[in-house]
Amino acid sequence: MVTIQDIADRLGISVSTVSKGLNGGKDISESLRQQVLDTAVEMGYTQKRKARVNKRIAFFIENMACEKEDDFGYEILLGFQQGAFRDKDSVDIIPITPEFQQEIRYDNYMLENDYAGAFLLGLALNDPWMQQFCDTTFPTLLLDNFISINPKLGYIGTDSEEGIEMAISHLYSLGHEKIAFLNGSKDSMISDQRMRAYLHSMNKYHLPIDPNLAVYGYFVADAAKYHVPAFLDAGVTAILCGNDSIAEGVIKCVKEAGFSVPEDISVIGFDDLPFAAELDPPLTTIRQNRGGLGKCAFFILSGLVSNIPSSRVLLRPTLVARKSTAIAKPRIALRRTDSLDSVLRVNPRLYEENLKDQL
Amino acid sequence: MVTIQDIADRLGISVSTVSKGLNGGKDISESLRQQVLDTAVEMGYTQKRKARVNKRIAFFIENMACEKEDDFGYEILLGFQQGAFRDKDSVDIIPITPEFQQEIRYDNYMLENDYAGAFLLGLALNDPWMQQFCDTTFPTLLLDNFISINPKLGYIGTDSEEGIEMAISHLYSLGHEKIAFLNGSKDSMISDQRMRAYLHSMNKYHLPIDPNLAVYGYFVADAAKYHVPAFLDAGVTAILCGNDSIAEGVIKCVKEAGFSVPEDISVIGFDDLPFAAELDPPLTTIRQNRGGLGKCAFFILSGLVSNIPSSRVLLRPTLVARKSTAIAKPRIALRRTDSLDSVLRVNPRLYEENLKDQL
Repeated sequence: MVTIQDIADRLGISVSTVSKGLNGGKDISESLRQQVLDTAVEMGYTQKRKARVNKRIAFFIENMACEKEDDFGYEILLGFQQGAFRDKDSVDIIPITPEFQQEIRYDNYMLENDYAGAFLLGLALNDPWMQQFCDTTFPTLLLDNFISINPKLGYIGTDSEEGIEMAISHLYSLGHEKIAFLNGSKDSMISDQRMRAYLHSMNKYHLPIDPNLAVYGYFVADAAKYHVPAFLDAGVTAILCGNDSIAEGVIKCVKEAGFSVPEDISVIGFDDLPFAAELDPPLTTIRQNRGGLGKCAFFILSGLVSNIPSSRVLLRPTLVARKSTAIAKPRIALRRTDSLDSVLRVNPRLYEENLKDQL
Repeated sequence: MVTIQDIADRLGISVSTVSKGLNGGKDISESLRQQVLDTAVEMGYTQKRKARVNKRIAFFIENMACEKEDDFGYEILLGFQQGAFRDKDSVDIIPITPEFQQEIRYDNYMLENDYAGAFLLGLALNDPWMQQFCDTTFPTLLLDNFISINPKLGYIGTDSEEGIEMAISHLYSLGHEKIAFLNGSKDSMISDQRMRAYLHSMNKYHLPIDPNLAVYGYFVADAAKYHVPAFLDAGVTAILCGNDSIAEGVIKCVKEAGFSVPEDISVIGFDDLPFAAELDPPLTTIRQNRGGLGKCAFFILSGLVSNIPSSRVLLRPTLVARKSTAIAKPRIALRRTDSLDSVLRVNPRLYEENLKDQL
């Protein structure tokens, strides 16, 4: 364990000067203060006050919000704060940007502000701090991002593989075969996971994979308009979305193109934010237990602080079946009035279930 | 939430009779008691006493021990009990066998004994209860076994992939190329994970894979004697083992064959049980943080009880480098006094590091 004395010895200055540098004392030059901080970080000094019982925890948030019920981070923060409250720890919410990360090193920020550990939400793979996590000495938990080797780093999230599998399985049981996937942003680890899971699940059910129907967009409703027209032209009967906002945009686009949800096109979201149940039709979606995720995150981060090296923690998603999914309509047949034979060729499993009534 | 009244209604008997059946009351026939229990389990009734604040937890253990410091389960149990102590929950340690699992259904056992949840260690893939976990309604955490879909089921373990990767990376940095893997038993999920990780890591470092050098054994020292002679004949310079006991057996066999550890053959274990440091030579091994695993297991199981659906929790292993691994000796060259050229062909990376001195 590195002490203030060690830092003083390394720099050839007094312990009290080191202390001033670490604690923002006044009669020390800015350049010496910076040198003290840099040396402390380099030597792996992590704790300014040894005797502190209650921890200060940083809750960094980027690319997402946590203020309103419909914000993805809202329930996560709530669960996290409930955990902290029980342990009498304090949590600071710190919105960050890539520019902020470029200005100050992660370890310096943590040390200067006396944080025992941090939980970070919404960082992109190419964010400046991502590299620095590989050798940080501060206990650090990332939502939806994984860093290898470093025992101070943990990853928490929802099992995307199982979630996507549940969605495809649900659509398959309804007779859908041509299923498009409008994913979130490309520079995100969970988007990669979900794309792999989509391909894997489609293969598992022997459903056709068309590269034009499995695309990356952005985690916002507006992403839909760039892709939905092509999906409809290709004759899909279902669209799986990277989150609920994308699904909201998809439903809008599908309706604008003159189709109805779910009669013509089934739509599935991901997350189950409160607004998902209020959409028209109410959205079938893959629920992330965000409150549980926040509570669990606090415990796992506390574990990292006391040297329990959790590296990967996944929560189980659940399928919430509402009204935006229904039995697949054999679109080719109904549009072109093909013969019964060709309808059955397109989707033989439907015969028993609903075609007999229609024809 | 199913109540005693629901069970009474289903069976057409009184609430007090149901209560006697559930709580082992006397004036009720054995067959009716069994019927009450079966119906309760079938209906998903999980809690006999709603008002209970402190939980009763079952700690099932099979194929391993937890009594002595050198037992794999010892520190796990200790960590688990520390967690339970903090929450004032009680933990019953229950050794089980496949026969026991055949005699009584898991849910019946849990209900009859009023357990809120269970942590199970050492079960094999083909154990009778493994199937029953797919639809149990009791919060259940498995060490080193994964069950999909069921939100009441969680899996906790050490990241085998990263552990094996650390071992191969360590051997590679010492110049080893021909590395054998003597794995644990075949009917275990972690053995499968570790075999895949071994093949993956060997590929990553472009090391040759020989199917005869990657074999399953058993998690005991005695497994070594069936495989080590063939490894030595094949000219390996390092042997990676599925746990520390196997490594102990391997060291013994290597010595009996007239080779020395680590001069001729490097050996790596897995787990870092206390005896690993006392072997001759002290064993280089992949450490599982078993105390942390136990503490974390208690928290995750408590989460499952309060509906936080953790499905997969992995702790990070660490490499503990002791004296059983060393720079690879170019065995072919040293035994047959080949030319420098052939030595370098066998292991060119060694040239700079130590061959210049030897030749």
